[in-house]
Amino acid sequence: MTDKPTLLLDAPALAALKPGLEQEFTVLTLWDQPDLEAFMAGPGQAVRVIIGGGGRIDPKLVEGLPNLGLIARIGSGYESVDVPHARAHGVEVTNTPGVNADDVADHALALLLAVARGVVDGDGRVRSGAWTKADRGPVRVSLKGLKVGVVGLGDIGKAAAERIAAFRSEVRWWGPRPKPDAAWPRVESLLELATWCDALVICARADASNEKLIDGAVLDAVGARGMVINISRGSIIDEDALIARLKDGRLGFAGLDVFEEEPTPAERWQGVPNTVLTPHTAGNTRGAIPAMVGLALENVRAYLAGEPVLTPVPG
Amino acid sequence: MTDKPTLLLDAPALAALKPGLEQEFTVLTLWDQPDLEAFMAGPGQAVRVIIGGGGRIDPKLVEGLPNLGLIARIGSGYESVDVPHARAHGVEVTNTPGVNADDVADHALALLLAVARGVVDGDGRVRSGAWTKADRGPVRVSLKGLKVGVVGLGDIGKAAAERIAAFRSEVRWWGPRPKPDAAWPRVESLLELATWCDALVICARADASNEKLIDGAVLDAVGARGMVINISRGSIIDEDALIARLKDGRLGFAGLDVFEEEPTPAERWQGVPNTVLTPHTAGNTRGAIPAMVGLALENVRAYLAGEPVLTPVPG
Repeated sequence: MTDKPTLLLDAPALAALKPGLEQEFTVLTLWDQPDLEAFMAGPGQAVRVIIGGGGRIDPKLVEGLPNLGLIARIGSGYESVDVPHARAHGVEVTNTPGVNADDVADHALALLLAVARGVVDGDGRVRSGAWTKADRGPVRVSLKGLKVGVVGLGDIGKAAAERIAAFRSEVRWWGPRPKPDAAWPRVESLLELATWCDALVICARADASNEKLIDGAVLDAVGARGMVINISRGSIIDEDALIARLKDGRLGFAGLDVFEEEPTPAERWQGVPNTVLTPHTAGNTRGAIPAMVGLALENVRAYLAGEPVLTPVPG
Repeated sequence: MTDKPTLLLDAPALAALKPGLEQEFTVLTLWDQPDLEAFMAGPGQAVRVIIGGGGRIDPKLVEGLPNLGLIARIGSGYESVDVPHARAHGVEVTNTPGVNADDVADHALALLLAVARGVVDGDGRVRSGAWTKADRGPVRVSLKGLKVGVVGLGDIGKAAAERIAAFRSEVRWWGPRPKPDAAWPRVESLLELATWCDALVICARADASNEKLIDGAVLDAVGARGMVINISRGSIIDEDALIARLKDGRLGFAGLDVFEEEPTPAERWQGVPNTVLTPHTAGNTRGAIPAMVGLALENVRAYLAGEPVLTPVPG
C-alpha cells in the first residue's frame, strides 16, 4: 500500500493515535528522527500533512518538506505555527475551534473552585493528619456574590461565564472588541476588570499581540485576596511577576493549567503558596480528545481530496 | 455585669466566636472542663443555652443543667442532638437551615470537578516533576453529557442540581418522597439511580433512618468508572464498603467532605486510590459562617426574650 498519503505527527503526546491512523495513512513521527536534515532529505520528502499536537512547528519543516500542504493542529490555539510564513510557502493551517470549549470551561471552574474552596490544601490536611477538632484550615471563599472577571468572551469565555453565573457569582468581562450580544456587561479596560474583580479568569486566545498582557500592574489590581485562573496560554501572563506576587502576598491565589514553559519545571513552584497547578489538561478529556482528533482528520481528508478545509485558522 | 445570660460553647471550633459573644453573654467553654460532673454541679448551673458546633451533645447535659432551655446548632444537620429526649426535658433545639445551601452545593461541585478533572492528581504531577511532554496523566472525564444522580433534593440538592446542569450534565434524583415541583426527573429507587448514573452526589440530610443507606450494593451499581461525592454526613455511606471497593477497583472515584469518624484518621486513607478528601469544610466559608452564626444567635435572642425561636428543627 505505497499509495497511502504520508502524515507526520509532531509530538509524543500524539503517539496513541498512530495505530488508528495507520489504517489510512503512512505515519511518521518527528520525535523519532535523530537528524532533522537527514529526515527532510529522506522520508520527509513524502510528508503531505503535519498533525500538530501543540509544540512549536519548526519553520524549517515548512520550507524543507516539498510535498507539505497542510498543518492540522489538534486544539484551538495555533500560536505554535507561523501562519503567514506557512501560507507564503503554500501550506494551509487548520485548528479545531469550539469543539473543546465546554471541557476547557469546566476546567476553569475546577481550578476556580479548587482555589476558592481549598480542595488541594484540604486534601493534604486530611492525608497528613493535620485536621483536628479545633482546626480544619482557613475559612474558604464563597462563590455566591463573588465578583468574577472573564478575560476574553469567545466560545470558552462564554461557556465559563455561564457556569460561573450558576454559582450566583457576579460576572463581568473584558476583551479588545465589544460584543453587542454578550449576556454579561463589558468593562472598558483590563485594568478596570482586574480592579473590580475578586477572581480573574483568563479565557482569551493567546497570540503574539497579548503576550504578558496580564502583567504586574494587572496582578496588583487583582490584589492580596484575589485569585487568577488561567486556562488560556502561559504566554499571556508575566509568570515571573505572578510568582513574585504570590510569594510576598501581593496576589492571593492562582489556579493554572498553562505555563510559560511546558512542562513547567517543578522547582519553579517550590515555595510559591496558594496555587493549584494542573499539567495542561483542560482539553485532555474523554469528550474533547475524540472531537478534536475527529475534526483535525476531517480537515486532513478534505485537503487530500482537494476540497476546502473545514476550519482554516483566521488571518 | 452578672446579669448577662450564660451560654455554653460545645466545641473548640467555636472558640473564635467567644470574644464577640462576651459583649452580650457570659460564655463558658465545654472543652475546657476537665470534670463534667463538677461542671454541671458548679458553673453549669447558670447555662441557659448551648451553642452546638456539630459534635454529639451529651444527653447528661440536657438532664443535668437545670436552667438549659435551648440547644442552638450552628449548621443544618442536627443528628448530634437527641431531639425527642431534649424536648422531653423542656429543651428546644434549633438549627440553621438553608443559609449555607449555596456554599455546600458549591463544595459538592468542587469535589465533583476535582475528581472528574484530576485536579489533586494533576497538582501532584506538576509539583513532583512527573509531567513530561509524553505524559500529562490519564485522560479525564467530561462533564458534558455525564449522568449525575443527586440523592436528596432539599435546599442543598436543588442548589447542586442547578450547578451540575450548567455543565451540561444530565441530572436525575432520588429521595424518599416525590416532589411534584422538582425540575429534574425522579427515579423510583436509589439503586436505580446508582445504576443509571456516572456520578452519585449525596446531598440528603443524614439521620438514624438513612445510616449506611449508600451500602455495598449501591456502590457496586455506581461501578468501576463511577464516582461518589458526599457532602452530606459520613454516616450515610458504609465507609468500609467504600474503601474496599476503591482499593480493588469495583468503584472508580470518591470525593468526600464528610466521614464516619471526624477527623478521619489519616492512615485510614493510605493506599486508597482515586480519592479527593476535604476536612468537612463545605460550610466553612466567608459567606456561610456569618450567616449560620447570625441565625443561631437570632434563635438565642428570641429564646432569651421569651419569643418563639425562628428555626426549630422538625420532629
